[in-house]
Amino acid sequence: MQTNYQKQTLGVLGGGQLGRMLIQSAINYNIDIHILDPDANAPCKTICQKFTQGKLTDFDTVYNFGKECDVITIEIESVNTEALEKLQEEGKKVFPQPHIIRLIQDKRTQKQFYQEHDIPTAEFVLVEDKEDVVSFKDFLPAVNKLGKDGYDGRGVQILRDESDFDKAFDSQGLLEKLVDFETEIAVIVSRNERGELFAYPPVACAFHPTANLVEFLFAPANIPVAISERAVAIAQNVIEKLDMVGLLAVEMFVTKTGEVLVNEIAPRPHNSGHHTIEANFTSQFEQHLRSVLNMPLGDTTLRMPAAMVNLLGEDGHEGDAIIEGLDEVLTQKGVYVHLYGKKITKPFRKMGHVTILEENIEELKIKALRIKNLIKIKAEA
Amino acid sequence: MQTNYQKQTLGVLGGGQLGRMLIQSAINYNIDIHILDPDANAPCKTICQKFTQGKLTDFDTVYNFGKECDVITIEIESVNTEALEKLQEEGKKVFPQPHIIRLIQDKRTQKQFYQEHDIPTAEFVLVEDKEDVVSFKDFLPAVNKLGKDGYDGRGVQILRDESDFDKAFDSQGLLEKLVDFETEIAVIVSRNERGELFAYPPVACAFHPTANLVEFLFAPANIPVAISERAVAIAQNVIEKLDMVGLLAVEMFVTKTGEVLVNEIAPRPHNSGHHTIEANFTSQFEQHLRSVLNMPLGDTTLRMPAAMVNLLGEDGHEGDAIIEGLDEVLTQKGVYVHLYGKKITKPFRKMGHVTILEENIEELKIKALRIKNLIKIKAEA
Repeated sequence: MQTNYQKQTLGVLGGGQLGRMLIQSAINYNIDIHILDPDANAPCKTICQKFTQGKLTDFDTVYNFGKECDVITIEIESVNTEALEKLQEEGKKVFPQPHIIRLIQDKRTQKQFYQEHDIPTAEFVLVEDKEDVVSFKDFLPAVNKLGKDGYDGRGVQILRDESDFDKAFDSQGLLEKLVDFETEIAVIVSRNERGELFAYPPVACAFHPTANLVEFLFAPANIPVAISERAVAIAQNVIEKLDMVGLLAVEMFVTKTGEVLVNEIAPRPHNSGHHTIEANFTSQFEQHLRSVLNMPLGDTTLRMPAAMVNLLGEDGHEGDAIIEGLDEVLTQKGVYVHLYGKKITKPFRKMGHVTILEENIEELKIKALRIKNLIKIKAEA
Repeated sequence: MQTNYQKQTLGVLGGGQLGRMLIQSAINYNIDIHILDPDANAPCKTICQKFTQGKLTDFDTVYNFGKECDVITIEIESVNTEALEKLQEEGKKVFPQPHIIRLIQDKRTQKQFYQEHDIPTAEFVLVEDKEDVVSFKDFLPAVNKLGKDGYDGRGVQILRDESDFDKAFDSQGLLEKLVDFETEIAVIVSRNERGELFAYPPVACAFHPTANLVEFLFAPANIPVAISERAVAIAQNVIEKLDMVGLLAVEMFVTKTGEVLVNEIAPRPHNSGHHTIEANFTSQFEQHLRSVLNMPLGDTTLRMPAAMVNLLGEDGHEGDAIIEGLDEVLTQKGVYVHLYGKKITKPFRKMGHVTILEENIEELKIKALRIKNLIKIKAEA
C-alpha cells in the first residue's frame, strides 16, 4: 500500500495557537496547510503555505477558502457550517463533520444531545431570556450559559441565589444545576474514517478563579482507577454517538459522590491536551492530523507525569507583550515554553503555555506553582 | 531580569532540513527566522518569516541578508565567511564565529587544529594532488579526503592499496591512516556567550556501506562508561579550544584498542542529533537556538533509549517522491516520522528520518531494522 500524505492540502478554519501547534506537527509530514483567519496577524500567518484573511462565519469566504483544499478542519467552533456542508456535498472531506460542529456551537443542543443519548450531565433547563431565568429561582444555585458564542470563559455566569439574577444573560441559553464537584477532568478522544478510536488518559484541570480559564493542568489526573475508566468510556461513547471523525475534548466533573458528568465538549485540539506535545507518545496535534487525514492513530500513553500552566496576559496590562522570568524558567529540567506569537497582550489573553515534566508528582506540583509565579506576561512600559 | 526573545531576528544560512527542524523549535519562542538558500523550493521556504533565494558563497548576497538580522547562524558550512566577518565587525552576532566556520570548511586546517591542541585524531599527511597521494604508498591503507566541499559522503575515498590510487582526488586534501575502529560515535556539545557548556550523551552511528551516510543511529552508544566519559571530555575540549559559541557535533572513532579519535566536526545541528527531538529533554535544535541567542542551555539527558533511521532516496529512483510503507510504520508505538519537504527524490538523497523510542535495547534494534525495511522513498511511476 502506498501513501503520500504530502500530496494533501489541509484547510484550517482559524489560525490561532491551536493552528500554530498543528502546523508544527504537520511540517513532519509535508502537509500543505492553508489557514483562514480574520486577524491579519494571526499566529499561523507566516508559517503556513497559504494564509487568507477573512471571516470564519461568512459563507462565501469559507466556501471559497475550502474549495482549494482536499480536507478541511477547524481550530475554533464558530464557523459557517452551511459553507462546510456545501463543500462536503461537493466531495471535500470535512472533519469534524459540519452537522456536529453546528450541534456543538449551541450549548443548548449540546445538552439535549447528552440527554437523548443517556450521557451523564448536570440537570438543566433551557431559557429564552433574563426574565425566563428569573422564573427558575427554585433551580438555584445554577450556572447560566449562553447558547452560542461563549468562548474562553465568556458566556458563563454562576447564579448562587436570587441576588445574582442581575448577572443573568438576557438571551437564549440554559440554566444548569451548579455541580458540587470534587475535580474537573478532561479526556481527549480521536477517531478516524477507519473507525479507530484512541483515548488519552484523563487529566485534571484547575481553573482561574475569576477568568474561568484553565490555569493549571495535571496529567495523569489524581482520581481512582474506576472513575478514570468510566471517564474514558464516557468520552469514547460521546464521539461514537456523534459518529464524529477528528479529535474531541470532553470536559467532565467528578462529583463528591463519585459521579462523572459531561460538562462541555470541543471537537478540536484543546487546552487540556497541550501537555501531550512532550508528555505523551503522540501529541494531540499530531493525533488531530492523523484522524482527519485518515492516517493510523498514534499511541496515547503518557511518557511521564506532566503539568501545564497557561501563560495569561497579566490583569491591567495591555500592549506590546514583554515576558518576565523566562530565563529562570528555562534553566529548569523538563520545562517547555510555548509562546503563541501574539505581539499584543491583554488581561487574561492566552499568550502561551509551559509544560513541566517530572516523575515525582509532589515535586511536579511545586514546580508548576513556582513557574506560574515566575513568568509574567506584561505590556512594555 | 526581563528577556523577550521574540524581538530577535535570527538569520540562517541554508534552508534545508536542519533549518526546517530549527524553525519548528523557534516557533515556540516567537523568534523571527530569515532564511537564505540557493534553492527556490528549499524545505524552509514556506515556514520562515522571510525567505531569500541566493548563493551562500557570494559576499554581497550573504552580507545584505545578514544586515537585516540581529543574530546570524548556519545550517551548512560552505558559506561566505568574509561577509560574516564584516557583519560581525559591524556589530552583528554571528555564531558559530566566522573564523571557526572557515577553519572547519577545510579538513586540512581542521586536522592541523587537532594536532596543535593535542586533540586525539588519526595520523595524517597533507596532499596537493593525485600525484602527491601516489607518492605516499607506504601510508596505505588510508582515507583520501578533499580539503574543501566534501559533503554528505562526497569527497571521501578509501585507498586500501596501490590499486585504489586511480580513485584518489586530484586536488588539495589529506591522506589519513585508515582507522581500524570498533564503533563510530558522536557527541554534540553546545556553548553560549555566558560560557555554559552542555554535552549530549554519546550516540553510535552505523554508516551506509556505499553512500557513506549515517544509516542508523543508536542512543545511548553501547560503549564502556570510561570511553563514554572520555568522548564527552574530548568534545568539550574541542568546543572550548575553538572558543566557539553555538552547537558542535564531534564525530569520533573508538578503536579496537579503546582509543577515542576525533574524525570530523560540524558547527551546527547534525544528523547524529535528530533523535534528541523526542529522545532527550532538550532537542539539538532548541539547544542550537538557546546557544546562539544566549539563552540558558537546556538539559541534555536522554529520556528514553532511541534509534534513528535516515530515509534516503532509493537507488535508481529520481523524480516526484512517493513514500512506501508509511502506514505500517505509523501504527507502531514510539515511532516518529520526519519528512523534509523535498518534492524530488534522488538516489541516497536525505528525504527524512524516523526516530524510534524503546526501553528494551534489543527490541529497539529489531524495530529500527524493521522500519528501515518497511519505508522506501521512490519516484512516482
